[in-house]
Amino acid sequence: MTVRTIQWRDGEVILIDQRRLPRKEVYRVCRNFRQVAQAIRTMVVRGAPAIGVAAAMGVALGARRIRHPRRVETAMERVFRTLADTRPTAVNLHWALARMRRIYEEYKDGDLEMLKRRLEEEALEICEEDVAANRTLGSLGAGLLKDSRRILTHCNAGALATAGYGTALGVLRAMKESGAAIEEVFVDETRPFLQGARLTAWELAKEEIPVTLITDNMMGYVMNSGRVDAVVVGADRVAANGDVANKIGTYTVAVLAHRHEVPFYVACPTSTVDLDCPSGADIPIEQRSQDEVTHIAGTRIAPDGVNTLNPAFDVTDHSLVSAIITEKAVVTPPYEQNLRAVCRG
Amino acid sequence: MTVRTIQWRDGEVILIDQRRLPRKEVYRVCRNFRQVAQAIRTMVVRGAPAIGVAAAMGVALGARRIRHPRRVETAMERVFRTLADTRPTAVNLHWALARMRRIYEEYKDGDLEMLKRRLEEEALEICEEDVAANRTLGSLGAGLLKDSRRILTHCNAGALATAGYGTALGVLRAMKESGAAIEEVFVDETRPFLQGARLTAWELAKEEIPVTLITDNMMGYVMNSGRVDAVVVGADRVAANGDVANKIGTYTVAVLAHRHEVPFYVACPTSTVDLDCPSGADIPIEQRSQDEVTHIAGTRIAPDGVNTLNPAFDVTDHSLVSAIITEKAVVTPPYEQNLRAVCRG
Repeated sequence: MTVRTIQWRDGEVILIDQRRLPRKEVYRVCRNFRQVAQAIRTMVVRGAPAIGVAAAMGVALGARRIRHPRRVETAMERVFRTLADTRPTAVNLHWALARMRRIYEEYKDGDLEMLKRRLEEEALEICEEDVAANRTLGSLGAGLLKDSRRILTHCNAGALATAGYGTALGVLRAMKESGAAIEEVFVDETRPFLQGARLTAWELAKEEIPVTLITDNMMGYVMNSGRVDAVVVGADRVAANGDVANKIGTYTVAVLAHRHEVPFYVACPTSTVDLDCPSGADIPIEQRSQDEVTHIAGTRIAPDGVNTLNPAFDVTDHSLVSAIITEKAVVTPPYEQNLRAVCRG
Repeated sequence: MTVRTIQWRDGEVILIDQRRLPRKEVYRVCRNFRQVAQAIRTMVVRGAPAIGVAAAMGVALGARRIRHPRRVETAMERVFRTLADTRPTAVNLHWALARMRRIYEEYKDGDLEMLKRRLEEEALEICEEDVAANRTLGSLGAGLLKDSRRILTHCNAGALATAGYGTALGVLRAMKESGAAIEEVFVDETRPFLQGARLTAWELAKEEIPVTLITDNMMGYVMNSGRVDAVVVGADRVAANGDVANKIGTYTVAVLAHRHEVPFYVACPTSTVDLDCPSGADIPIEQRSQDEVTHIAGTRIAPDGVNTLNPAFDVTDHSLVSAIITEKAVVTPPYEQNLRAVCRG
């Protein structure tokens, strides 16, 4: 892998600073769980699976600093709470913390060093499993999209959004590895954070997959020109009924794909599926700072005092989703039944 | 009017530099037709009706510099050609040049000073008529939208896009003047040139109309949240069948409005209607420089060497248009028949 999103090294979590890409490859070293929480909140690291892995490593870092067994419970509850409160929408964060908590509950009353070691092992396992899941779902997705030559993706669901390989971009990587002739990948810039322009264009260029960058409002134009065979995006949370929360703008892409009869695929590991969440209406949507909308790359673009909205995600109704590509299976409607069967199976 | 988009003063055309707004109010003085052509090409002045007025004044400037009657024909043909070649999509440019040419044809063989005076008078008349048309269509639109409290607009179809008052924003101004309680106007930023964030937010704030700025990819989110009662946009060219070419992203707004059963209105003077153009497929779509997509406010956001698309406009099928608000009437389907009746009537 040329992209090292998250690394664990001698009790440090090393993150590529995604706010600085593609101009600069800067790595941030987190030495305690608060630095990890801050990195998640400020989007040094972003993308649902990557946030899950970073949070798990944050828990391991939090445990590592504990010196006295009698402080374990207070310290660890603070660690879990701080990391859980960073961002509300992506469920992988909570899924990863729940896995770490199971280890914590099992070992908390035993030897402190054993607890630390087991938490570190679990975090590294979550990291490795994520890459493996992406490779598998990538390969399943490559089969599904094998006849698509011109693909549109939104935001960044790549190696940078995961522990490696990527979900939506994992499908593209797997297509390339299997020899599929990808003619063109349309990437929209994805305001306000510009994950498409900055991260996806950068990742695909490194893979030598042909990219055409467009602004978000050109999606309708390219679909209406008949230039898109399929759409593939990632997800931050999939509800039990198949509704998909993903980066703001995904719903618009899905509506356009529906109008133009272009298949709309969602690629994500089963850790993104939240069977406890009945529908999209139950997914909390993070509202971020006004500055992200009024400024671009540090420059103010809007008049002073203007009001803004800045929902970081939107919800796409399951009726607009052609299939959900997971590492266990390609799930098709009826989602209510099939997601449960696949995720519990 | 607090916004002075285009002014004619002692043989100079004075344009507010729309690339610098809202941070700086800079006025550019054009002393010859080439400077006007350059200002249109580089979007110092933009918006279909404003381009038409600027081009007409450019013709008057071009005539003004002619010293010898025997040079009139060569000089004036160069003036017309240079101005016609600036931007291909907006039809008001060609409509205004055609009006100026009729005066030219009528007076070219007579007294040179008379020709100059008549061209100047015609340019000023085009300018005044544009403001008057906008006031009238604004008032007709205000009647149509009288029960809409929350309105979404795209790009800038305001005083800055016209000789004054505006088309889509003219409707909002007229609503306010007639005492309608506008609760909220959603303005999308309109990448790549950011006309929404920079110009529309600025104009509406000056009018004390409540604005909420969003990124282009939030349009689906706000409509899906039931927060929009009506959409009103301008146009760069309306074909005889009612297809509408307007700023890139308009088609996406129209598709979303259709899905959410939100009325989608186009506001433009009849000078924007091109009865000689059968359908949207016949409207040339300007492709602009890659730099506008790879850069924002002078900062490069995309990796080096990435390919882009940059269509400045898209075409919205007439089936998605609820009504076209002109200064002569509010035109409803069937457009083929009703546009012809209204524009020729």
